[in-house]
Amino acid sequence: MALCECRCESERMTDSKRDAILTAAREVFRESGFTGATLVRIAVAAGLSYSELVEQFPDKELLLRAVLAQRDDDEDARSDFDAITDPQAALAAVVDLVEYNAAHRGMVELFTVLVGESVVPSSPGHDFFRERYARRVDSFRRTYQRGADAGVLDPEWTPDAAAVELTALLDGLQIQWLLSDGAIDMAALVRAHLSRQIVSPTAAADAADAAGE
Amino acid sequence: MALCECRCESERMTDSKRDAILTAAREVFRESGFTGATLVRIAVAAGLSYSELVEQFPDKELLLRAVLAQRDDDEDARSDFDAITDPQAALAAVVDLVEYNAAHRGMVELFTVLVGESVVPSSPGHDFFRERYARRVDSFRRTYQRGADAGVLDPEWTPDAAAVELTALLDGLQIQWLLSDGAIDMAALVRAHLSRQIVSPTAAADAADAAGE
Repeated sequence: MALCECRCESERMTDSKRDAILTAAREVFRESGFTGATLVRIAVAAGLSYSELVEQFPDKELLLRAVLAQRDDDEDARSDFDAITDPQAALAAVVDLVEYNAAHRGMVELFTVLVGESVVPSSPGHDFFRERYARRVDSFRRTYQRGADAGVLDPEWTPDAAAVELTALLDGLQIQWLLSDGAIDMAALVRAHLSRQIVSPTAAADAADAAGE
Repeated sequence: MALCECRCESERMTDSKRDAILTAAREVFRESGFTGATLVRIAVAAGLSYSELVEQFPDKELLLRAVLAQRDDDEDARSDFDAITDPQAALAAVVDLVEYNAAHRGMVELFTVLVGESVVPSSPGHDFFRERYARRVDSFRRTYQRGADAGVLDPEWTPDAAAVELTALLDGLQIQWLLSDGAIDMAALVRAHLSRQIVSPTAAADAADAAGE
């Protein structure tokens, strides 16, 4: 407790400014994208002067990186699929993540706008999202591989294709969900998708027998 | 022939200016999104003065609508799935469309950037993409329905879920394809997806028998 209280006033002030800036930046990036956002507008939204903002974040790219890193930390905390050794439990955790997202529209909008911009190689978010997607697909691939090893992945799927397709499905469903004002049930669709890929060990053995193995 | 040549000089000039503006707008929207683009930058890229540009397109939203409409006309010409009565042929045409897209990276980037921005309800492209997606999903739904009627849609799928999932898959694969510099084979993945959904009439009958129908 003493440790928490011992920080000097200016440090606490810096943290609260940082939080205000990140909150404002998320909102402005969501509305206007990274390219359309300006530091002046973010400063106004944060209730700070321009010079107070650039003291914390000298340029817009640093601010984008901080927003993305914070979002990734939040998501990693909720979706460390590698930490769940049972492949079926890990895939069930994906449905939980989708349900969480469906309750946080603003965050899904922000993510979709920033990913969209980032596909242009010269864009400032390109390397971040490129690495993020590679990491995410690898994590899903390891989960599906554990499923294949346990004999519960439908043999029609390779772990590689299953990982790429699940990642694509999550992104694509978010776009339709946002454009249709939530008219599609993302979690139900992802659950149905996973239930088609994952079979019970008995069914998997039957399929292998039927295939003459 | 006489009809083609009889248009006056100023009309032809207007058309060529329009084409130059649309080409420049596609490039600037792709690089900077709609929000980040300016009419001045588009005019410079088109080799025109600002006043020449606003004579054709008085504001940026009109220009966005023209770019999107032109892109949709191009795509509709290549992907009128409703015109293909055989459901398997219609779905094969989806793979052709993916192969076409994989040969036109700039166009896929433009589309991904603009869709990304459009998920925010206040964005100028929102209504356009909302309608476009509803139309696209409906078209796929009718195709899958014809497949179900012909007994070639795996009974694990409803036409509705199949249409939403195919649309999501196409969008999501484009994102990964763009972020990985084309490291994934979109067409092969879509082909495999469709082959899991579409079964031969014999296999469909066997599955119905096995289910005790």
